[in-house]
Amino acid sequence: MAQQARAIATRRAIIEAAATEFIEHGFTGASIADIAERSGATKGAMYFHFRSKELLAQAVIEQQQEANAALQEQFVTSDLSALAILVSMVRELGLQMKNDVVVLAAMRLAVEIPESEQGTGATYEAWAAPTEVVIEHAIAQGDIRDTLEPGTLSRLLVASFTGIQTVSFATTRLDDLMPRLREMWTVMLPGIVAPGREHIIPDVLQRA
Amino acid sequence: MAQQARAIATRRAIIEAAATEFIEHGFTGASIADIAERSGATKGAMYFHFRSKELLAQAVIEQQQEANAALQEQFVTSDLSALAILVSMVRELGLQMKNDVVVLAAMRLAVEIPESEQGTGATYEAWAAPTEVVIEHAIAQGDIRDTLEPGTLSRLLVASFTGIQTVSFATTRLDDLMPRLREMWTVMLPGIVAPGREHIIPDVLQRA
Repeated sequence: MAQQARAIATRRAIIEAAATEFIEHGFTGASIADIAERSGATKGAMYFHFRSKELLAQAVIEQQQEANAALQEQFVTSDLSALAILVSMVRELGLQMKNDVVVLAAMRLAVEIPESEQGTGATYEAWAAPTEVVIEHAIAQGDIRDTLEPGTLSRLLVASFTGIQTVSFATTRLDDLMPRLREMWTVMLPGIVAPGREHIIPDVLQRA
Repeated sequence: MAQQARAIATRRAIIEAAATEFIEHGFTGASIADIAERSGATKGAMYFHFRSKELLAQAVIEQQQEANAALQEQFVTSDLSALAILVSMVRELGLQMKNDVVVLAAMRLAVEIPESEQGTGATYEAWAAPTEVVIEHAIAQGDIRDTLEPGTLSRLLVASFTGIQTVSFATTRLDDLMPRLREMWTVMLPGIVAPGREHIIPDVLQRA
């Protein structure tokens, strides 16, 4: 039992070390030896848990998807409006990216030139699909204008988030991520909110 | 003279080969030997023109900036409205990225994890500064609402463009770049255009 707990802790430490290496050197530049050294795992433990860099990237992406699912579950029982949930989800994702190296690493892997094609697209899809559902609810609730196609808005939000975090990472290492995400809503909300519902904008912006 | 022309042609071929390698393997994954081989340059010529991968990346970024400046000059004498110019510039940049490997490579370098910090931020700044000027004109012309801060909108457009091309590259190798850029304007224009000027939107969208 203690042995199993130790194995789980080792696996977690390796994934976190891999995430940090992917962030600093990219998938191509990261080396298994450096990841093992950073995590403190022995060569044997490393080989037992992850035999290749591809498997490490896959574990990072899977753990990000779990974090993403947990983030979405937070809002399932929420009594906020769907539009408020949409804005809150983007904020929470931004905070996750600032606070959880595995989430940030998964994003960096998605952005990096897809050498192996592996995992690419999955991260974007994992965000776009639930975002589209929330947008559909917000349209049904009359807060988002019904002339907007949910898939269009969802794709744009995912792409804009991707670009904002990319530029913020490249220029300030995410220091200005949260104000930049807020700016996105400041510009977009007047075009998204249904005519006649403009009065809800200040309240929704509070959650950005 | 013929010798000089040959040197220029060789230099150009090396930069194009470097751009292709950067796109396919990233800065970290690209190798000088592969770039030389792809360009058909001899080891001696390679060493004469570019002694390091950093210098190659710098040449790619500089050539992108020249292309970018040429793109902007196209519109200096235009009699289009500033808002129409803004939308047209984004479209032209998208087309450049699809058609010019050097422009695309510069973008990929800007997006890639900045191992060397070199050049990062410069690409974004090269887009954001002129974009801001055009936005100021569009506000002065009454087409963009004057409650929008030009710097805010300019940063968001650059970040959204970055994200759209990143997702488009990762998922379709830029096949869907132009319709995705058009979608951006479809969603954003109603929030950007000044109240009372909504009737110009269909015409402006024609240029997206």
